[in-house]
Amino acid sequence: MKVINDVKFLIVGLGLIGGSYAQALTDLGYEVGAITRSQSSIDYAIEKKLIAHGTTEVTKEYVEQFDIIVFALYPKVFVEWIEKYQSYFKAGAIITDVTGVKGAIVYEIQEMLREDVEFVPAHPMAGKEVYGVQNADKTIFTHANYIVTPTSKNTPEAIKTIKQLGRLLGFKTVTELSPEEHDEMIGFLSQLTHCIAVSLMDCKESEYLVDYTGDSFRDLTRIAKINDAMWSELFLLNKSELLSQMDLFMSKFTELRNALESEDIEKMREMMRISTERRKYFDK
Amino acid sequence: MKVINDVKFLIVGLGLIGGSYAQALTDLGYEVGAITRSQSSIDYAIEKKLIAHGTTEVTKEYVEQFDIIVFALYPKVFVEWIEKYQSYFKAGAIITDVTGVKGAIVYEIQEMLREDVEFVPAHPMAGKEVYGVQNADKTIFTHANYIVTPTSKNTPEAIKTIKQLGRLLGFKTVTELSPEEHDEMIGFLSQLTHCIAVSLMDCKESEYLVDYTGDSFRDLTRIAKINDAMWSELFLLNKSELLSQMDLFMSKFTELRNALESEDIEKMREMMRISTERRKYFDK
Repeated sequence: MKVINDVKFLIVGLGLIGGSYAQALTDLGYEVGAITRSQSSIDYAIEKKLIAHGTTEVTKEYVEQFDIIVFALYPKVFVEWIEKYQSYFKAGAIITDVTGVKGAIVYEIQEMLREDVEFVPAHPMAGKEVYGVQNADKTIFTHANYIVTPTSKNTPEAIKTIKQLGRLLGFKTVTELSPEEHDEMIGFLSQLTHCIAVSLMDCKESEYLVDYTGDSFRDLTRIAKINDAMWSELFLLNKSELLSQMDLFMSKFTELRNALESEDIEKMREMMRISTERRKYFDK
Repeated sequence: MKVINDVKFLIVGLGLIGGSYAQALTDLGYEVGAITRSQSSIDYAIEKKLIAHGTTEVTKEYVEQFDIIVFALYPKVFVEWIEKYQSYFKAGAIITDVTGVKGAIVYEIQEMLREDVEFVPAHPMAGKEVYGVQNADKTIFTHANYIVTPTSKNTPEAIKTIKQLGRLLGFKTVTELSPEEHDEMIGFLSQLTHCIAVSLMDCKESEYLVDYTGDSFRDLTRIAKINDAMWSELFLLNKSELLSQMDLFMSKFTELRNALESEDIEKMREMMRISTERRKYFDK
């Protein structure tokens, strides 16, 4: 398998996730390079031994040394990068990504990509409420899921390589979904939950509530601290799926509201029994 | 102050909260008795040294020994208990409670109560997703808030005593609100969040999602494991306030949904910036 031999990794976009990939791969003994916008991120990553070398300039000479290239960029920047620089890749290189939406970018990139380079999309479902390479931390992968979302354009060999990358990074599970299944699932589990947290936090000027807050409100709003540029882009790229999930939630919430208004205690209790039963699946 | 002298405490209702009160007070050297429905709870609490003694029978002889009586019952059972047995209290006794709604019960109980006994309502904002005296644990109070909700019927001396009880139990903060302020606050911070969690968990038969779930979905649904008998009763007793809070949330959620539908990215980002800013208040 390609990835476990002597390959060189390039990380494009050295933020929290890119930096954490770099750290995990460097610690396994791989040679890892990076391209990112700010020189200070490169300097930091070299000093902390996350990468062997890096540059803020995209040049053919630098890019063509790498066998596997990981894109950890905002979705649209990722698409533009491929348009602009794909001629720099070494023939036979495999590229992958960490993007949180798939349908809106996977087909577009595979369509435009050179025949002799393969793109195997992946979504590492890991994160933190902080950003930047300074917060890179490979342990965020330990309890997290890594999803590969290949299409009919992908070869079994390259899919195997990118799945193996997930295992090398230390993810708890490595699974495979279609881009469409991925987007439905992420629309419900991740994007909808962020919409709920943002809306709840926006309800009130709430500073005076801090003294009365129990864990429930804290838990439901933890993810209301959000990178507005990134998440609004992700929401728009998964718009129709996310709208369906928001409408589904709103219909359930309205059911409960109306049961309360009409004092239909049996309906309320039934909804609570279902939620109690289902939540048990998620006990770690 | 009465409570720090040699007083005897009676806990009525030996579940998670009643048992944790008993444990904290016994550990401080107070004599604590209990009345509860099941003999096995009494036996357990005596064996684990949570209480000195207890009974499943409500008798004048037992009740009249106690100076401070804590009711840890469901709201309606609490009201019925007072109706039925209030003649058993010692003259000068102070009673308090742990009920999660206030307006719907405080005035009713104060109205019917004997002139020589005083009811100072309190709400310890602590809990767990497990029930019963077997899970009693006084450390749940350490990071929690204790709210006293007196009315014009209460005396400064008795309010002081019940606040002191909160401090003895080890709560992080002891504060005072009117019953109405309490119910608005709890409607938003606690009841609304439980409604959201229940509705979200009810959206899908979700067992197949477990492998893809990150922390966001787990955090937002932790409280979807819920005691349906107790919470439906609490919701109904705070119905109009909770309906207002649910409608407020729904209007914010709809704003975000409509911004997404119309691709109003500036509006989406603005809502995210507000939530990010406000959530900072709640960082521990």
